[in-house]
Amino acid sequence: MNGAEALLRTLVGSDVDVCFANPGTSEMHFVAALDRVPEMRGVLTLFEGIATGAADGYARMTGKPATTLLHLGPGLANGWANLHNARRASTPLVNIVGDHATYHRRFDSPLQADLWGLARTISAWQRSTARVDDVGADAADAVLASYGPPGRIATLIVPADVSWSEGGAPASRRPVPPLPLVPPETIEEIAKVLRGSERAVLLIGGAAMRERGLGAAARIARSTQAKVLCETFPAVHARGGGLLEVEKLAYFGEMAMAQLDGAQHLVLAGARAPASFFAYPGKPSDLVPQGVTVHELAAPGVHVPAALDALADALGARALGARALGADALGARAPAPQAAPRRPGRPSGRLTAESMAAAVGHLLPDGAIVVDESITSGLSVPAATAGGPRHDWLALTGGSIGQGLPVATGAAVASPGRRVLSLEADGSAMYTLQALWTQARESLDVTTLVLANGSYAILQLELARVGAAGDGERAAALLDLHRPTLDFVSLARGMGVPAERATDAEGLAALLERSFSEDGPMLVEAVLG
Amino acid sequence: MNGAEALLRTLVGSDVDVCFANPGTSEMHFVAALDRVPEMRGVLTLFEGIATGAADGYARMTGKPATTLLHLGPGLANGWANLHNARRASTPLVNIVGDHATYHRRFDSPLQADLWGLARTISAWQRSTARVDDVGADAADAVLASYGPPGRIATLIVPADVSWSEGGAPASRRPVPPLPLVPPETIEEIAKVLRGSERAVLLIGGAAMRERGLGAAARIARSTQAKVLCETFPAVHARGGGLLEVEKLAYFGEMAMAQLDGAQHLVLAGARAPASFFAYPGKPSDLVPQGVTVHELAAPGVHVPAALDALADALGARALGARALGADALGARAPAPQAAPRRPGRPSGRLTAESMAAAVGHLLPDGAIVVDESITSGLSVPAATAGGPRHDWLALTGGSIGQGLPVATGAAVASPGRRVLSLEADGSAMYTLQALWTQARESLDVTTLVLANGSYAILQLELARVGAAGDGERAAALLDLHRPTLDFVSLARGMGVPAERATDAEGLAALLERSFSEDGPMLVEAVLG
Repeated sequence: MNGAEALLRTLVGSDVDVCFANPGTSEMHFVAALDRVPEMRGVLTLFEGIATGAADGYARMTGKPATTLLHLGPGLANGWANLHNARRASTPLVNIVGDHATYHRRFDSPLQADLWGLARTISAWQRSTARVDDVGADAADAVLASYGPPGRIATLIVPADVSWSEGGAPASRRPVPPLPLVPPETIEEIAKVLRGSERAVLLIGGAAMRERGLGAAARIARSTQAKVLCETFPAVHARGGGLLEVEKLAYFGEMAMAQLDGAQHLVLAGARAPASFFAYPGKPSDLVPQGVTVHELAAPGVHVPAALDALADALGARALGARALGADALGARAPAPQAAPRRPGRPSGRLTAESMAAAVGHLLPDGAIVVDESITSGLSVPAATAGGPRHDWLALTGGSIGQGLPVATGAAVASPGRRVLSLEADGSAMYTLQALWTQARESLDVTTLVLANGSYAILQLELARVGAAGDGERAAALLDLHRPTLDFVSLARGMGVPAERATDAEGLAALLERSFSEDGPMLVEAVLG
Repeated sequence: MNGAEALLRTLVGSDVDVCFANPGTSEMHFVAALDRVPEMRGVLTLFEGIATGAADGYARMTGKPATTLLHLGPGLANGWANLHNARRASTPLVNIVGDHATYHRRFDSPLQADLWGLARTISAWQRSTARVDDVGADAADAVLASYGPPGRIATLIVPADVSWSEGGAPASRRPVPPLPLVPPETIEEIAKVLRGSERAVLLIGGAAMRERGLGAAARIARSTQAKVLCETFPAVHARGGGLLEVEKLAYFGEMAMAQLDGAQHLVLAGARAPASFFAYPGKPSDLVPQGVTVHELAAPGVHVPAALDALADALGARALGARALGADALGARAPAPQAAPRRPGRPSGRLTAESMAAAVGHLLPDGAIVVDESITSGLSVPAATAGGPRHDWLALTGGSIGQGLPVATGAAVASPGRRVLSLEADGSAMYTLQALWTQARESLDVTTLVLANGSYAILQLELARVGAAGDGERAAALLDLHRPTLDFVSLARGMGVPAERATDAEGLAALLERSFSEDGPMLVEAVLG
């Protein structure tokens, strides 16, 4: 068995059975081995940023890594930005990067680059396999490393001669140790804080944003009157279906500080202490108001939902209600319904950010996965969907735009039978639009809703916020996406995805309804007035 | 004056007056300063790989750097692959990368990454400006560093607070020292070698591929009967108009070794010793045949055309012919015409790689710039254009696909009045297709000819060459671009570029003729049968 086949068999044996690929010559033996290892599903992408973003979306939904297949330094570089987002999402992810044959590197041929140095800037674990005998063990180690905790990027560099040489042997799966638990003393200490104060804020994030964590947070809030906030850009936020509705920490610092105003204690559970996304002249970067004491209940690498449950138990909080919503990835404790389901009415008239949000809220299918890269235009959608059916919400975790379409692609591969709604801004959609082709190729149930406002609207805001705005035309032109206007209907059809344009609220609702009821992908361009 | 304005004024004062930009919040003061420094032309791109590739194309045509404007680590990463190609082209290029404010970095906010480490993997020179007082000097140093020699990537990281703080002062331009000359002893030594052997090969590359170098190479070949070859992927190759027709070193190693077969001496002028692009099982990576002695006349960092001229003079070679073609960037020595202009006839009938090449050769405008990322489908075009009018040929220097459309964009910005013909393969076009939007926005005279064969055809070849090909469907599927078929006409129109499809040779010729006679960009999709 050659190295490539041993690598593939080890991955499959380690429960990694989807590969988002954009291969080149150095990966050809890996590609050929796919025919001998049919348990591995290869998904072709037209650009490496699609492969890495899709692997992120896949892992967010399954809790287990996918692998990418990338071509040398440039392939890893093209995938880097979405690896950055995956890193911020604590996503387990395994990169397989093909390299030149070991003996070929000294020739510094055109595609040679500092691949090792590049991998180091984005990977928590990395290895370059030196001999074919090691490839199985290295792959099994890479999968284990990707689990963290918390989940992380593991990059295995595989020289071409390691792939093509005979003598490879698959390694067996490395068991993933259980997540560490928070010691009882910490639980008790924080329970004491919450019992002693009526001005506490519980800030949850990461694994706390799933059903079990939200249920525990609801119990804690009920028995202590602590205010519950959640991080601004969660990897997966379980919403709707009567789950606890959590207020998000605001993106802009002054709004976040207002949310924390008057607090005495801030308890962190899977979230980091609030800090500004960017720095602004004369505004603080540290968003924890003076006089607030910060306590860490659970860091991202520990069992955060268990810690919240233990805290709720310590506080004597009982589970609210009786409705069981089933086990999530982290445990079987069911949260309580908070409110009767409610949806906005079917909108009509002018297509605005608000009527668009109402259309989404009115029609969102049960079990949907919402991938949110709508930047400014989608701000009304969370409120319009909070009371709707159970769905998962995947945010732009690392701030690097071009994440939405790829993550939607991977989430759909991971979740057959569920509708993915990809909320996209026009500017960010253009970073990785090639994802649409993979959605068509794999017949994925993804509805892409492009919110076209013809500008980098967030940058127009930021230009003012950093105090740089003048009334100059040349600066304004650099944030403007008209001249020419992007036609997303034409772009999507060019990649084999059916597409239509909505110019009023009725039209948008009808198109969403159609897409939600049909199999396969569709793109809807909403021209916001 | 704030730091951003001092930075811009320094760049402009250093003769860097085009900025290919994809800015974010940390670059907003730079954007705002554009209104105060109208000498700087800002060109907006929809993805950073467009910005870096365009800067490469611009510098290849002008000999001076453009600057990019990139947003933090992810922005640099998105531009990395085309920086890699620029590095391989010895292109002078200045990256301006915005960073978080210096005091903000400790918060590790979502967009924070190892920007310094990332820059190190692609830059020959890099600096992070620590204080606003330094920004002018740092920018002037960056421009100087980019000149090398040879040209190289200089990356200046500018924290947001350096941009927005008052106290900046522009620095004056650093003079670029003249290129080093090759010592007379080396010239004489190699002249002796060439006089004493009839089995010598002169391999030229880099700066030798312009008019002066080609003229000198022609004189050397005439007086010594040395065989002249050139590197496979030159940054700029001056062709047509009677210039010396140089045979390219073949891409595949066995063909390259056949070209060198029987040689006794190999003289390098601006080129590197031949090595295989990739390694293949059982095939050599080193392509210099046994028994061949390698001599370096001129390394890429010295004045290569002057060295060739000196060598020709030492050999007593006279300039051939009398036609003066004017001075190029490296000097005024004019080459001699080699042959009367000849073009292929206007093709008709089936649209094949050959009839497509004939259409291009029949119609190529005088002074055209051909940007070649056609991979397998364009192999017949060089022969069909060699005898045509004077044009420049820009190749894929670093092997990282996605270079063609961006380089064409930058070459067009650099060369108003000249038609750019961008020869693209379908697979590689999809990497950085967003360049079309910038071409429409800037009304650039670029004709993009997409050669659609519906596959990664080069990889199908490579799969066989690495000995990995089976008859398996799953491997074949991963190299296939049908399912769904890409519609480049629809894609181009979606970005505001007029587009048409050609299905026979007459149709292709008519569309090329139309595009060559009209202002602005156009895309022609040639469906090859």
